[in-house]
Amino acid sequence: MLGNMMFQPLLISSMIEHAGRYHSDTQIISKNTDTSITTTTWGEVHQNSKRFANVLVQFNLNHGDRIVTIAWNNQRHLESWYAISGSGYVCHTINPRLFPEQLVFIINDAADRVILFDKTFAPLIKAVKPLLKSIEHYICLDAADDAIREAVPEVKFYDDLISGQSDEFEWPSLNENTASSLCYTSGTTGNPKGVLYSHRSTVLHSYAIIMPDSLNLSAKEVMLPVVPMFHVNAWGTPYAAAMVGSSLVLPGPGLDGASLVNLIDTYKVSVALGVPTIWQGLIAAAQQTGSKLPSLKRNVVGGSACPPSMLKTFKEQFDCETIHAWGMTETSPLGSANQLKAKHSSLPTEEQFNIRLSQGRPPFGVDLRLTDAENGTHEIARDGETTGNLQIKGHWIIEQYFGKEESALTSDGWFDTGDIASLDQDGFLKISDRSKDLIKSGGEWISSVELENLAMGHPEIAMAAVIAAQHPKWDERPILIAIKKPESQLTEEEILSYYADKVAKWQIPDKVVFVDAIPLSGTGKMLKKDLREQFGHLLLESD
Amino acid sequence: MLGNMMFQPLLISSMIEHAGRYHSDTQIISKNTDTSITTTTWGEVHQNSKRFANVLVQFNLNHGDRIVTIAWNNQRHLESWYAISGSGYVCHTINPRLFPEQLVFIINDAADRVILFDKTFAPLIKAVKPLLKSIEHYICLDAADDAIREAVPEVKFYDDLISGQSDEFEWPSLNENTASSLCYTSGTTGNPKGVLYSHRSTVLHSYAIIMPDSLNLSAKEVMLPVVPMFHVNAWGTPYAAAMVGSSLVLPGPGLDGASLVNLIDTYKVSVALGVPTIWQGLIAAAQQTGSKLPSLKRNVVGGSACPPSMLKTFKEQFDCETIHAWGMTETSPLGSANQLKAKHSSLPTEEQFNIRLSQGRPPFGVDLRLTDAENGTHEIARDGETTGNLQIKGHWIIEQYFGKEESALTSDGWFDTGDIASLDQDGFLKISDRSKDLIKSGGEWISSVELENLAMGHPEIAMAAVIAAQHPKWDERPILIAIKKPESQLTEEEILSYYADKVAKWQIPDKVVFVDAIPLSGTGKMLKKDLREQFGHLLLESD
Repeated sequence: MLGNMMFQPLLISSMIEHAGRYHSDTQIISKNTDTSITTTTWGEVHQNSKRFANVLVQFNLNHGDRIVTIAWNNQRHLESWYAISGSGYVCHTINPRLFPEQLVFIINDAADRVILFDKTFAPLIKAVKPLLKSIEHYICLDAADDAIREAVPEVKFYDDLISGQSDEFEWPSLNENTASSLCYTSGTTGNPKGVLYSHRSTVLHSYAIIMPDSLNLSAKEVMLPVVPMFHVNAWGTPYAAAMVGSSLVLPGPGLDGASLVNLIDTYKVSVALGVPTIWQGLIAAAQQTGSKLPSLKRNVVGGSACPPSMLKTFKEQFDCETIHAWGMTETSPLGSANQLKAKHSSLPTEEQFNIRLSQGRPPFGVDLRLTDAENGTHEIARDGETTGNLQIKGHWIIEQYFGKEESALTSDGWFDTGDIASLDQDGFLKISDRSKDLIKSGGEWISSVELENLAMGHPEIAMAAVIAAQHPKWDERPILIAIKKPESQLTEEEILSYYADKVAKWQIPDKVVFVDAIPLSGTGKMLKKDLREQFGHLLLESD
Repeated sequence: MLGNMMFQPLLISSMIEHAGRYHSDTQIISKNTDTSITTTTWGEVHQNSKRFANVLVQFNLNHGDRIVTIAWNNQRHLESWYAISGSGYVCHTINPRLFPEQLVFIINDAADRVILFDKTFAPLIKAVKPLLKSIEHYICLDAADDAIREAVPEVKFYDDLISGQSDEFEWPSLNENTASSLCYTSGTTGNPKGVLYSHRSTVLHSYAIIMPDSLNLSAKEVMLPVVPMFHVNAWGTPYAAAMVGSSLVLPGPGLDGASLVNLIDTYKVSVALGVPTIWQGLIAAAQQTGSKLPSLKRNVVGGSACPPSMLKTFKEQFDCETIHAWGMTETSPLGSANQLKAKHSSLPTEEQFNIRLSQGRPPFGVDLRLTDAENGTHEIARDGETTGNLQIKGHWIIEQYFGKEESALTSDGWFDTGDIASLDQDGFLKISDRSKDLIKSGGEWISSVELENLAMGHPEIAMAAVIAAQHPKWDERPILIAIKKPESQLTEEEILSYYADKVAKWQIPDKVVFVDAIPLSGTGKMLKKDLREQFGHLLLESD
């Protein structure tokens, strides 16, 4: 017997309708590509999203067709998101920091029919345009500009397109499982793969990140997503903000510490979200200017582990509570967030602090487990110490990659994250290592194992290890640690050119270090951790 | 094109699984019917819910069959909820304060096959048992007790039943639109009608009440639902508490102020939920004992409008923030909750206070509108002043009543609440009157109009008004204000016995007042508001 309640699909269009109706005068602050500021509201974003939807219907696209955006966090980008997904197309965000050959691969793989880009990226678009197979419309997310027209002659301009369009538009009543958005990520081997979110997964994920024990979002907040909209949909914050009517400060291209301090202090930002490197910049800039960031109550740290000193600095110097969270493209991304429980309130500060260092616990809607093997199904203890392969399942977790026939899951339906972690009785998660030995370069994964196997195939190499070295621009880049065979005169240049026809250019290691020995564990495994400690700073020092 | 994310049904069983897995040691404090206290945990509630599920499968019920509970807020009741809905049966809660004839009607109408009852209600069960047509199993939610056995010879005892049962149980993977629970409410005329919730509506409603701008629920809280589990599922809090791992304090039968002060202070309750009359009792008792309720950060007021003085008292005397909320059985119940927005933070306290007096604004998932007629479809202004018929639609709003063929909605799919209200630009709701002129007696509605029409049918009555008089036990009871025809010698007794064969006994007015004139508006409508001011206290004074 079914219940007798209304059935309405869970749709992204409902979010912008809610924001337009109940939060019409709530401010959206947007930094443009020329660093000027536009102040608008959810009411205007709502209207413009409908204007742009009226533009898109004229393009003769089919529901499910992909529209790619290469843009910063700004108002037009936000409006276009709601127009695209709300109209039944797929909003495909792409990371402009990708290597051009990746970008081309991804756009062709997604068969994107329309491309939206910020001014900043006109030279990039010009460069890759001859290689793009499916793009029919080039739209610059800005007012008309001759320089852009010169670079991309067929360009249309967003402001021209929406000007004169009606702000009346009836969003289609889609099946809630309809695809809404697409982000690419790289797996262990091969080319980047797309994660295709649905309207349902997006709405449920938004409810989850809003929860007080997740990111704690409401109409009381002024939210600054420093995490880019091209990075797992800015962790879902542009959706959640519309759902709760939070004010938004969209930082555009200026992600340096000084720009962020200025935005936070000027617009009284209460919650900000980003990766550790962003916060390092912010802390340094705030210390330099002497700002105590008085409006900032919380910041959310994800992307990689939050250093303990950062958590302490935010608390002690800025009275800002840091929420440590974990997720990945395949998980929408929220897998866990760190918020204490009632029982922790009586603990000494230092013990609370230790708990807060973990990546947190899962919200209702996802479930975590540890297994004793990659893609294994045998669950191991949740004792806070035993580590195993971290797996996840839930309403906003991938089932298969875009365009792939095969499932991305274990035989019993879990997604193996590639992380090695422990879980305690409360589900507090500690990531300790990567099972897949990957390098995260500019947001994309590179497989160490693949590069090692190739090196080992070289006749003059006796042993090879590829590790992630820290990099000021790409976060991590691969470097090769190798033992030459006796008598070999092999040079760094020779081994790097040996890679050239075997992997994509951006996957080739940045450096080769020849050594006499590589440390091994008792069972003969290379101790990558030791190598990372010894050589992980090499690219920073040489820069 | 569909997204490529996992599909999992939204199920109530997932809530108790989440609580059992991630909040196993979080305390559930439960006051028993004998006023003793049981301290248990979500872990044990989870295990017992599975034990009871193993009992229920032996009853040869079919999915969708109804199991009725007549019980206070306590641990066994909570466990049984999860066992019932989780197993695919419908958890039908019933208000023990109903008049026996209503109770019999409702149980027979729902065709309940199993009845669960607290010790307190054994005499009630004994009295109505001969009239119950469908009940096959009588289960007392307690340990074995000879007195109960004497009253209800076929009784089984909950503790006996679950003892020795396995705590392993595989919850069925139901369609998420499957019926999960049932609450009856009375409409304008006729018998009470059932509202049949689904698993999906319940999970989505829970996500909504958890939001920071709704009830703001988390694992940091110790929550006291004073609102009974038989009253619109305690506003959904037992579900939300499992979803976030909040600690629960279940007050059992002791809803007087002194008992509540004691529970709050002993168990450090941080958030409590109930109707205004409960809070009046709590304030009086706290003032008497001198407790400042130091742990209580928030209380939620619903059911009827929160008096301004109460909101002030909680803030000024107890430093407790009152959340004013609105809803009804047909809306699961959350329709709106009052939380301020960022733009209000700079307002003077008095202006903030005025905003907080409204019933609040809708969370994402429901939508409100005003129309110019009952069940009308013509929307009127959201200007904070114009009043109209309040209508609602959304994921957790009724579509039709249980067992009825016809829709409960307007021709364009909205539910007319029967309230007259205004909405402002932000969706802040102010209920000003009832369009349907109803009396809410013991949680059930009685139609004034129906009673007036009957009175007007009496040959010796010239004019009649029926109003809600405040009542210490039933909240409101109908009283009849009548003008006799000239020369009539009609007595109160005669008119009351005249009603006897025309309406159910519990609908008959408690009192008749003969007057010389009834105040009328310029358009000839009876001024009920004036009559309520003049006669509304009559039953309090005479008690």
